[in-house]
Amino acid sequence: MIKQLVAAIDLGGTNTVFGLVDKEGNIILKESIPTAHFQIPEDMAAVVSEHIKLAMEKFEDQYELVGVGIGAPNGNYYKGTIEYAPNLVWQGIVPLAKLFTDKLNVKTVLTNDANAAALGEMMFGGAKGMKDFIFITLGTGLGSGIVSNGEMVLGHDGFAGEIGHVIVKENGRLCGCERRGCLETYCSATGLKRTYIDLLLGQVNKGDVQTDMIDSKYIYDKAVMHDKIALEAFEQTGKVLGLTLANSVANFSPEAIFLFGGLAMAGEFIFKPTKESFEHYVWHIYKGKTKILPSQLKENDAPLLGAASLIYKELGMIA
Amino acid sequence: MIKQLVAAIDLGGTNTVFGLVDKEGNIILKESIPTAHFQIPEDMAAVVSEHIKLAMEKFEDQYELVGVGIGAPNGNYYKGTIEYAPNLVWQGIVPLAKLFTDKLNVKTVLTNDANAAALGEMMFGGAKGMKDFIFITLGTGLGSGIVSNGEMVLGHDGFAGEIGHVIVKENGRLCGCERRGCLETYCSATGLKRTYIDLLLGQVNKGDVQTDMIDSKYIYDKAVMHDKIALEAFEQTGKVLGLTLANSVANFSPEAIFLFGGLAMAGEFIFKPTKESFEHYVWHIYKGKTKILPSQLKENDAPLLGAASLIYKELGMIA
Repeated sequence: MIKQLVAAIDLGGTNTVFGLVDKEGNIILKESIPTAHFQIPEDMAAVVSEHIKLAMEKFEDQYELVGVGIGAPNGNYYKGTIEYAPNLVWQGIVPLAKLFTDKLNVKTVLTNDANAAALGEMMFGGAKGMKDFIFITLGTGLGSGIVSNGEMVLGHDGFAGEIGHVIVKENGRLCGCERRGCLETYCSATGLKRTYIDLLLGQVNKGDVQTDMIDSKYIYDKAVMHDKIALEAFEQTGKVLGLTLANSVANFSPEAIFLFGGLAMAGEFIFKPTKESFEHYVWHIYKGKTKILPSQLKENDAPLLGAASLIYKELGMIA
Repeated sequence: MIKQLVAAIDLGGTNTVFGLVDKEGNIILKESIPTAHFQIPEDMAAVVSEHIKLAMEKFEDQYELVGVGIGAPNGNYYKGTIEYAPNLVWQGIVPLAKLFTDKLNVKTVLTNDANAAALGEMMFGGAKGMKDFIFITLGTGLGSGIVSNGEMVLGHDGFAGEIGHVIVKENGRLCGCERRGCLETYCSATGLKRTYIDLLLGQVNKGDVQTDMIDSKYIYDKAVMHDKIALEAFEQTGKVLGLTLANSVANFSPEAIFLFGGLAMAGEFIFKPTKESFEHYVWHIYKGKTKILPSQLKENDAPLLGAASLIYKELGMIA
């Protein structure tokens, strides 16, 4: 019997990873090319499509290609476009889904990477069978994908679900979005670093702090060694995250909230203060109902599994 | 041709209003009984059902009853129950939908009053044709009903969509939910009063302030007379609301946000500062996309229209 495969693409500012994924979540092919190598998106689509076609030819007795799923920054699900992505060389509005459908003659679905990863969690990870959950990726920034009634919350324009840009402190830290106090300025690898440095500056002379080598891994290693400032930085990060997630519950009342990404890998250093703060702040009608869990997706596989899930979801293969 | 009618019930702590509503939003019958008169919910359901049966008998050549819709405090859509409503004499979990289905032999759908009113806005008001919007009722508290992908956001337990209990100020004002800083302690008739009194106390000796006669109508009348403190109270209320709605947009990216209820009737006194604050705080990717509008439902009709919409929605009569 011919089995179905999806071409999955994770478009990043630096690299574009693509591959073929079956409906059990096996990644049959995985390749990577530098995104910035292509001056225009048409060239990238042509090269990636060619790779996919060649791979499919090898499998033609076993597999058929049923669609292309793409996770991309500033991805618009409704239009299949990337819109004004600051980290890409391609300017303006890029009709990426259409480029792939033209080349490969199958349906292409595109959304932002966090939305895609949320669907990946639903199809292949810890959110199997859930109709209401939130997926949060704690990386350089804070991305989120929200599922309500079994569907992605996309909003009228396709850009809903940006919990990282909820303002949690008026006149707070300056954010990349040019406003102040967004959640991701506190709760992300970058936010943790800022908190750690703020705490450090409170203790020593400004001139003494070497900030270049500090990143979340550095702070994690310090925390493992019981460094008080590192532990306090995690504590403060979790406190802000827990309060914001308590507010997310008042909005969405999800069955679970999944934490993914580099900062989530810090385990109890981030989960413990987050859960404590969450339990402290969540309204009693919701208490004990929403689980805060680590993502069940492998860090490296999540982008392709998420992108593939976009198509499997369209085909009705996610409950 | 026999036309369809829905029995609509708006259950409140003081009165229960019920009636019959056709699919054009005409209220064919409207009656009211004191809720607290009934020691047990079975008696209320029996009396209201009897009234509805009698009314339907009069119409039997023209109309058929297709369902019962109920808006109720702490209403659980999934279970058809009212759960631990603090303002009702009935304790614990009340299976109200079942009581009506047993009496009237039609489907009964129940949810909280703000969710019901949101569907009313969708079927009969300004949200016709919208798939993503937020409905906010500014009364004694702040209630909200959220529609995403054309469906109510209910969450896994049926209690999602409580924007009034998003914490907007850590260690802020004490809320009826026993936490501090919830939106409704700032943005509601009660919140406006608290802000007005706080401002007044900043100006005069504590002993001089008579707070008993102050309510949102009083403050509105003062604002009409250009009273600076009243105007400032509206200004501050709108500022908090606008910021919180900007955050709601990062979550839901709705096409519109509808304001309903006593405080919304203050017109530009509340809309102007809310919109200004919203425009100031909303992330630029959403700017100019979400309308903040007054509800198009009449204050008195909204509860019954909302309750009726619950059934018309089930029947697929809302786009």
